[in-house]
Amino acid sequence: MNITERIENLAKLKSALYQKDFLLTWEKSEADLKAILEIAGLLKQLRAENISPRVFDSGLAVSIFRDNSTRTRFSYASAANLLGLAVQDMDETKSQIAHGETVRETANMISFLTDFIGIRDDMYLGEGNKYMREVASALDEGFEKKVLPSRPGIVNLQCDMDHPTQSMADLLHLKNTFGSLEALQGKKIVMSWAYSPSYGKPMSVPQGIIALMTRFGMNVELAYPEGYDLIPEIVKLAGKNAKESGGSFKVSHSMSEAVKDADIVYPKSWAPYHIMQERTELLKNKDVKALEELEQQALKNNAKFKDWEYSAEMMKTTKNGDSLYMHCLPADISGVSCAAGEVEGAVFEKYRIKTYHEAGYKPYIIAAMLFANKFERPAEVLRGIFERGLKRVDSLQLFSF
Amino acid sequence: MNITERIENLAKLKSALYQKDFLLTWEKSEADLKAILEIAGLLKQLRAENISPRVFDSGLAVSIFRDNSTRTRFSYASAANLLGLAVQDMDETKSQIAHGETVRETANMISFLTDFIGIRDDMYLGEGNKYMREVASALDEGFEKKVLPSRPGIVNLQCDMDHPTQSMADLLHLKNTFGSLEALQGKKIVMSWAYSPSYGKPMSVPQGIIALMTRFGMNVELAYPEGYDLIPEIVKLAGKNAKESGGSFKVSHSMSEAVKDADIVYPKSWAPYHIMQERTELLKNKDVKALEELEQQALKNNAKFKDWEYSAEMMKTTKNGDSLYMHCLPADISGVSCAAGEVEGAVFEKYRIKTYHEAGYKPYIIAAMLFANKFERPAEVLRGIFERGLKRVDSLQLFSF
Amino acid sequence: MNITERIENLAKLKSALYQKDFLLTWEKSEADLKAILEIAGLLKQLRAENISPRVFDSGLAVSIFRDNSTRTRFSYASAANLLGLAVQDMDETKSQIAHGETVRETANMISFLTDFIGIRDDMYLGEGNKYMREVASALDEGFEKKVLPSRPGIVNLQCDMDHPTQSMADLLHLKNTFGSLEALQGKKIVMSWAYSPSYGKPMSVPQGIIALMTRFGMNVELAYPEGYDLIPEIVKLAGKNAKESGGSFKVSHSMSEAVKDADIVYPKSWAPYHIMQERTELLKNKDVKALEELEQQALKNNAKFKDWEYSAEMMKTTKNGDSLYMHCLPADISGVSCAAGEVEGAVFEKYRIKTYHEAGYKPYIIAAMLFANKFERPAEVLRGIFERGLKRVDSLQLFSF
Repeated sequence: MNITERIENLAKLKSALYQKDFLLTWEKSEADLKAILEIAGLLKQLRAENISPRVFDSGLAVSIFRDNSTRTRFSYASAANLLGLAVQDMDETKSQIAHGETVRETANMISFLTDFIGIRDDMYLGEGNKYMREVASALDEGFEKKVLPSRPGIVNLQCDMDHPTQSMADLLHLKNTFGSLEALQGKKIVMSWAYSPSYGKPMSVPQGIIALMTRFGMNVELAYPEGYDLIPEIVKLAGKNAKESGGSFKVSHSMSEAVKDADIVYPKSWAPYHIMQERTELLKNKDVKALEELEQQALKNNAKFKDWEYSAEMMKTTKNGDSLYMHCLPADISGVSCAAGEVEGAVFEKYRIKTYHEAGYKPYIIAAMLFANKFERPAEVLRGIFERGLKRVDSLQLFSF
Repeated sequence: MNITERIENLAKLKSALYQKDFLLTWEKSEADLKAILEIAGLLKQLRAENISPRVFDSGLAVSIFRDNSTRTRFSYASAANLLGLAVQDMDETKSQIAHGETVRETANMISFLTDFIGIRDDMYLGEGNKYMREVASALDEGFEKKVLPSRPGIVNLQCDMDHPTQSMADLLHLKNTFGSLEALQGKKIVMSWAYSPSYGKPMSVPQGIIALMTRFGMNVELAYPEGYDLIPEIVKLAGKNAKESGGSFKVSHSMSEAVKDADIVYPKSWAPYHIMQERTELLKNKDVKALEELEQQALKNNAKFKDWEYSAEMMKTTKNGDSLYMHCLPADISGVSCAAGEVEGAVFEKYRIKTYHEAGYKPYIIAAMLFANKFERPAEVLRGIFERGLKRVDSLQLFSF
Repeated sequence: MNITERIENLAKLKSALYQKDFLLTWEKSEADLKAILEIAGLLKQLRAENISPRVFDSGLAVSIFRDNSTRTRFSYASAANLLGLAVQDMDETKSQIAHGETVRETANMISFLTDFIGIRDDMYLGEGNKYMREVASALDEGFEKKVLPSRPGIVNLQCDMDHPTQSMADLLHLKNTFGSLEALQGKKIVMSWAYSPSYGKPMSVPQGIIALMTRFGMNVELAYPEGYDLIPEIVKLAGKNAKESGGSFKVSHSMSEAVKDADIVYPKSWAPYHIMQERTELLKNKDVKALEELEQQALKNNAKFKDWEYSAEMMKTTKNGDSLYMHCLPADISGVSCAAGEVEGAVFEKYRIKTYHEAGYKPYIIAAMLFANKFERPAEVLRGIFERGLKRVDSLQLFSF
């Protein structure tokens, strides 16, 4: 599709993303989600054609990472930079937060000339998303009381509940792989737990996937060993979504059974809900000894499910023996990054480049979230950008030597 | 006041800030201080009207933070970004400074394409401001010897003596709260020590406040428990300033007495001069044991003055029972950030949003310091910026879809 | 020379730097090296005349520093910023690299919107340059498989073998000091080991110097105490280079003998090849005890050569008693940064400002490497930049008040 057609498609969507935070995909309408995909696609295409979509002459995009990150950190930095913003990291170790600052105050202190705040906070169950809403509420107050000249938008860069920049990048990958969102209807996607030698991986990716993919008429199957539940409310939501979208949602307990005839498989480890609950309690109480015991117990339990490794043999049973393999990366690859892990080395290698493509959508998804938050009529602004034709890399070709 | 009028006012001021560092407010003339306030106000207004004051196409604003910081770090980053500069932090833990570099050399090494250096160094009495002057002198030499294409300006982001970006932001807050600098004449402002459960807070804020506010005809009262002196030379300076400006300056030793009929109160903890002297000596000698003992002794002594908490009862005795409460933040708020602290929870809450407004001037004060350092006739440049009308956020409204 | 003449000179060079990494000077043709010098000189001159050479409207310049750095970090940041790119540091302590990411994957994950990656990795013999090539190969694959919209260029910011941004900055310093590259023919330069109280200094600077300066007809002498060898292949290469360029190359073992009649001396400590080999083995095995023993033994051995200090007495024996002293900084200066070191205090002081000038070329050398990588015909683009005449600092002089 050419850029003009894409812009026209976007203009038809009745999205309501203007001046709204992006915290959970399930708070967004179908039009909202489609608009994000369209804007992300357009921004990617514009950049590929060396057209700069810069819309800010100055302004900060603050990042708060309460957990390690490579790809999301770079994705956020790339997105901000693409639109003209400078990233300022809020490094809590270098700040005075330890000196008793409240979230309410800090949120305002970092926002006087800030357009966006991207937050990763996935360590504590029941805390990450709550923290984002505390920041949001503080910003609302700051804007209302004229402390802030504008209300910075918040983007959830992963919390305890959802990882919307990941799941939306995944959805754009699926859309482009299968041709359209419509083409995803009736496709079988298996979000499966997989074995990992590590412990405490967040549940936000599987939760984000089942909550989002059920909205587009897909047949979503969530597979995990008994006991490795996700947050119940989100599982319930996935069922509801499936019903409304004309797809299906099913929970099962065998990877090898689940992947049969699947169009897409997403094998990925996570820590069970009840372990996460215990862990959060222990972390709050700083009970180091009990935390170590919990880790040992959890690893021991994980080890019972080493056969939850996505293998070439399993792959053969998927649709045409060639189900699209997905992962948010980094994967625990047997024989590569660990002795035994989530996926067999040869299977991962077959789809490795595709997982890189999958990851490559994230910067544009984030940029789209910023863009849609800032402009009431994003299609018009993108049209303007296209017509302006400002080059990203200006080789000044017109000047001949 | 509209922008054109403000620019005309600015043009009348005989300031001499061009190519001068901003290290201490008491090295600046009244015209200099007024010019900073005017430029800061103009930059704030321009940005509020979505006009970008960018004047740099590239260039670095280096920051050196030798102590933790949130708000000053973000203020400096915002100011630099607003004018078009990229912030490059000089993280001494990642540098080779430990490998025997001298200040003289490092100052030049980080400045080849640098327009400004912002420095926070408030840990050692007698050291912070001295360090800034060592950097300044190295830059002078580097520029004179053509090592540097221009002489980067230095902004004091807090030292052992002064915190000029804070005190100037506070002054702008007062100017805007009371209507004008002239309206501050005869107003009573109380800079009072207050109890804090923590230890070793710098003296630069109270010193900066008494040295600056005495220059505008205010009646400044400095209140603290016996023994909690500030640097004597600066206290003396405040007295001299008051005499010259037609205001008054007084030292007293009871918070509850001092705040009576006050128009403004600024209750804030600090470590006494003699403790800071001992501490600096011990820090230099790395005498960890003695440092711990000193801390214990100081905390024990502080605890005798828990009644130095600004309370609702005290507030009632101030002018109209509604004296403007100020703080550089974060405050030690009783029942909020600590059990007992500098201010009662309800009192702080009443003025909380006002303290946010107060803090919100700092980015513009810093931007004004950079601006005035760079341009000989700042009013002309601001006029040019206003007429240029470059949008900060460009929604390309002209392009209709 | 004026800018137009310089541009014409550049246009005549048959360089092939377009879309090529800059990893080792000895992989580059003479035309390549000359082109870098010309572009660096032009960028420096343009900036001095307040003309902005910005060619990027957005884009990231990633930095990966696996060892401490001040001057190279700031040089890279300055170069990137000058051309319009934002620096994004890949801080391995904050990333998920420890979680089992492979170089191949990470290289792509940080490159979706990245134009350049600058890497310093000089800790392990046989590893640093290899790592850069692993990154390069991963980027090649990513670009070929359309993961990346363009192939980010890699700049070696110091490895175990070479330090090309340093040696090229040094060469530009020599060119400007002596008037031209041609004027360097027949000049005697002594790269000498010097005593240092510290241990484990990389060999990349002396290796870079002997490999580069032998290409311009200079008489290069490498002096070191018996046993303090460099990587044999690189020493051999220096000999070969000298033969081809009409200069000479000689290894000797007395600093005081070597510096006689020298036009240029470069006294600098390094750890011997065999120690670096042992150290790398021990580091890999994490044998902390043996590493400490090796350090003690190496320091003890160094101490035998305290007379390898470049002294005023030695200086007198150089050409006209005024041989140009060079150093990559920071130097170990006797009586200044250490009790006894590489150079006498008075000698260093005499040439101190010249070492600052030497260092000042590095940002422009790096900028030239980025520039030449990005544009097939850099002379044309520089002509365009000159004609565009965009001001770096825009004082909007045209608007009179």
